[in-house]
Amino acid sequence: MDAEEFRRRGKEMVDLVADYLENIEDRPVYPDVEPGYLRSLIPTEAPQDPENYEDIIKDVERVIMPGITHWHSPNFFAYFPTASSYPAMLADMLCGAIGCIGFSWAASPACTELETVMLDWLGKMLQLPECFLAGTHGQGGGVIQGTASEATLMSLLAARCKAVRRIQATNSDMSEMEILSKLVAYTSDQAHSSVERAALIGGVKMKKVPTDEHYAVRKDMFMKMVEEDKADGLLPFYFCATLGTTPSCAFDKTEELGPLCNEENMWMHIDAAYAGSAFICPEFRPLLNGVEFADSFNFNPHKWLLINFDCSAMCIWVCNYGVILFFLLPGLVTDYRHWQIPLGRRFRSLKMWFVFRMYGLNGLQAYIRKHVVLAKEFESLVRADKRFEICADVVLGLVCFRLKGSNELNQNLLKRITQCREIHLVPCQLSGRFVLRFAICARKIESHHVQKAWQHITQLTFELLQEPEH
Amino acid sequence: MDAEEFRRRGKEMVDLVADYLENIEDRPVYPDVEPGYLRSLIPTEAPQDPENYEDIIKDVERVIMPGITHWHSPNFFAYFPTASSYPAMLADMLCGAIGCIGFSWAASPACTELETVMLDWLGKMLQLPECFLAGTHGQGGGVIQGTASEATLMSLLAARCKAVRRIQATNSDMSEMEILSKLVAYTSDQAHSSVERAALIGGVKMKKVPTDEHYAVRKDMFMKMVEEDKADGLLPFYFCATLGTTPSCAFDKTEELGPLCNEENMWMHIDAAYAGSAFICPEFRPLLNGVEFADSFNFNPHKWLLINFDCSAMCIWVCNYGVILFFLLPGLVTDYRHWQIPLGRRFRSLKMWFVFRMYGLNGLQAYIRKHVVLAKEFESLVRADKRFEICADVVLGLVCFRLKGSNELNQNLLKRITQCREIHLVPCQLSGRFVLRFAICARKIESHHVQKAWQHITQLTFELLQEPEH
Repeated sequence: MDAEEFRRRGKEMVDLVADYLENIEDRPVYPDVEPGYLRSLIPTEAPQDPENYEDIIKDVERVIMPGITHWHSPNFFAYFPTASSYPAMLADMLCGAIGCIGFSWAASPACTELETVMLDWLGKMLQLPECFLAGTHGQGGGVIQGTASEATLMSLLAARCKAVRRIQATNSDMSEMEILSKLVAYTSDQAHSSVERAALIGGVKMKKVPTDEHYAVRKDMFMKMVEEDKADGLLPFYFCATLGTTPSCAFDKTEELGPLCNEENMWMHIDAAYAGSAFICPEFRPLLNGVEFADSFNFNPHKWLLINFDCSAMCIWVCNYGVILFFLLPGLVTDYRHWQIPLGRRFRSLKMWFVFRMYGLNGLQAYIRKHVVLAKEFESLVRADKRFEICADVVLGLVCFRLKGSNELNQNLLKRITQCREIHLVPCQLSGRFVLRFAICARKIESHHVQKAWQHITQLTFELLQEPEH
Repeated sequence: MDAEEFRRRGKEMVDLVADYLENIEDRPVYPDVEPGYLRSLIPTEAPQDPENYEDIIKDVERVIMPGITHWHSPNFFAYFPTASSYPAMLADMLCGAIGCIGFSWAASPACTELETVMLDWLGKMLQLPECFLAGTHGQGGGVIQGTASEATLMSLLAARCKAVRRIQATNSDMSEMEILSKLVAYTSDQAHSSVERAALIGGVKMKKVPTDEHYAVRKDMFMKMVEEDKADGLLPFYFCATLGTTPSCAFDKTEELGPLCNEENMWMHIDAAYAGSAFICPEFRPLLNGVEFADSFNFNPHKWLLINFDCSAMCIWVCNYGVILFFLLPGLVTDYRHWQIPLGRRFRSLKMWFVFRMYGLNGLQAYIRKHVVLAKEFESLVRADKRFEICADVVLGLVCFRLKGSNELNQNLLKRITQCREIHLVPCQLSGRFVLRFAICARKIESHHVQKAWQHITQLTFELLQEPEH
């Protein structure tokens, strides 16, 4: 394919992309395929000779679309949102063309430098403390990681390294292996599985802190665990706080927990993967209070800030550049390869630049607020129906609800919802109860989508409750 | 930006992309900027209100392009190639529009299933042993990782887990920490820094095996180290072989090393990040012999197989699905989140599908062969000039060469090359000598680019040798 053909096919693809997104509501949001469906639809080997481009495009509809869960459909309320916007897609096209690998400053200076400045822009939008910004000295600040899992892992490795050095400095008779065997990390019993996995990778113990009735970690319970572990000869070194948990969007009390971590020489990392985007609104910023006690902080603009996944999957800021990061080898220039697990990296900050400029802070705030209003609207609908109950505080764009009754009843309701394929939800467990999660996800969602989804849910509920076994 | 505007701006962007790539030779391949250049060119904060799209596009030329190292210029001979092709860019646009997050099968079945089948296609192109393929049972096989660094880390973690279980099964009195403190991993003294880093992350010792005069690990030296370590009470458990090292594209002797690893219960991982793409050509496939002894194998199609970075940054296959992978929790369906560090993942196999079908195996082989021929052409030019020497076997697309003389002389030559910005090279160290690496990189490179590059190098050499201090 030469440049001329690319010009033609590229423009066709732009229309295909716009057509797909404009008409996404016409497709069932959830696919109706069995595991292994795709293998029989395509050859078992690559072709020897080139095929026609038209055949490939036909196969997108024949082979791919039947197996797609349409995350950007306004009928998609599962998981958490994944961002999508036209400016981000345009920036991604440019990123693909430039195709530089920004593992060091010299490998493409613009790739490193725009990233540093964009993370400062974002840090200012969030009103992060100064120590989290690179500022004019141009070092430190934030970095784009691939995913929140990687950010958590990096923070845990940095904390592990710092703890070993600190403990060895005062206990020169302790070997590194002895220290490692006594280190203990903590996180909420509501934290994402990737936090536990980071500890597994790093080869350190991790304990789950029980949460209160709002699914938040509180100081008293945490302090009790830390004291007991210290009495047992363990070495507490790391706490991963969650702001906006995956099951219910609960918020750990970082304002209480942060000072405790600081006193105990424990690294506090804040994982705000979903909720972080909302902190650009002054009315939600108090949820981030306590960040001034944190050593590192991350959230995913690719979830809720209109920047498509893979461009800006996550950001991590490290407070105080002087802190010894595991891989951080400060030099004259920022070489981001030392800040992350992978070596290679794309020019992902281009997407942030395009989106921030095309929306402006006002536009981004309006987007967040609209989603929160729609979640509140759904909450009101649920509360007005006495057969249902709300299962957790509705703070941002997630509503956890269930039918008053058994877990089995709620499992049956979700099964029917999934089978109908008109809307898509996923469940969670809260205090041993099977709960439905309704997350506001799509960029183009409006009130009537929420209303229609609720009508659908109540219709299926009606049918379910009519049946003899209930 | 609504769909109508995206249709217009998207088509403009397609032309911008084609214009950039068509005229890339007009730009100096290496930028002329100082660290921190970009910060002063843009505001210190995000705008409050939306800006004009035209202003953003103007800023691409004003702010970004001066700081770009043009990896796809035919005058770029640095590092290793990073892939770029129009079919991959079209697939990436589609990937961005679908925007599904394929962390589990259900999150978008097509995303998981196409990946499994594409890795089988690729495995067949490479004539991998059957045990590396998923086949019709649809499980196991390969997975796309972000980068080779992540693949190495995953393989080391899997090996660590397997070793601990195996050793504990026969030594029930040994604690996990005791085992970890005695585990030892090995790799070549020519291996990429990410291999050493994987061991640091995993908290295990890693030793570098000295290489022979071709910069390859041989059995005798390796066996000697393993025997000595065992005698010292250590537990050898992992060897990362390199096929195509970063400095000189050297090949460890995996046919000798593999049986040794198997006998010693050591996991053998093969890192063929750059060279792997060449193994689709029958004449280069013997370089992969010995893979039948490996537990895992990876290479980067995003380097040399025309699939842009970030779509298919790397592939890893694990021989025998039954092998206990660290995170692998086999179920009815393949949930790739258990195969990798990140949770989220894009629909990266779309790029493989587009590229394989638009080029066909013949087209891909022709592409590899052309690059190898051009490297041989450059090698001949160097060999014909008695002032220069070739420093390592030229097997694929990399030529390591230097001026006969001091390291300082060669450093000066490279400095002049870099300052002229007509071509771009990076150096390496081989046996303590400063060596220039000439890697065939660009998709659109032709013989005349190689000839012109050589003329430029000899012209600068002439000027350098004229100067009084030489």
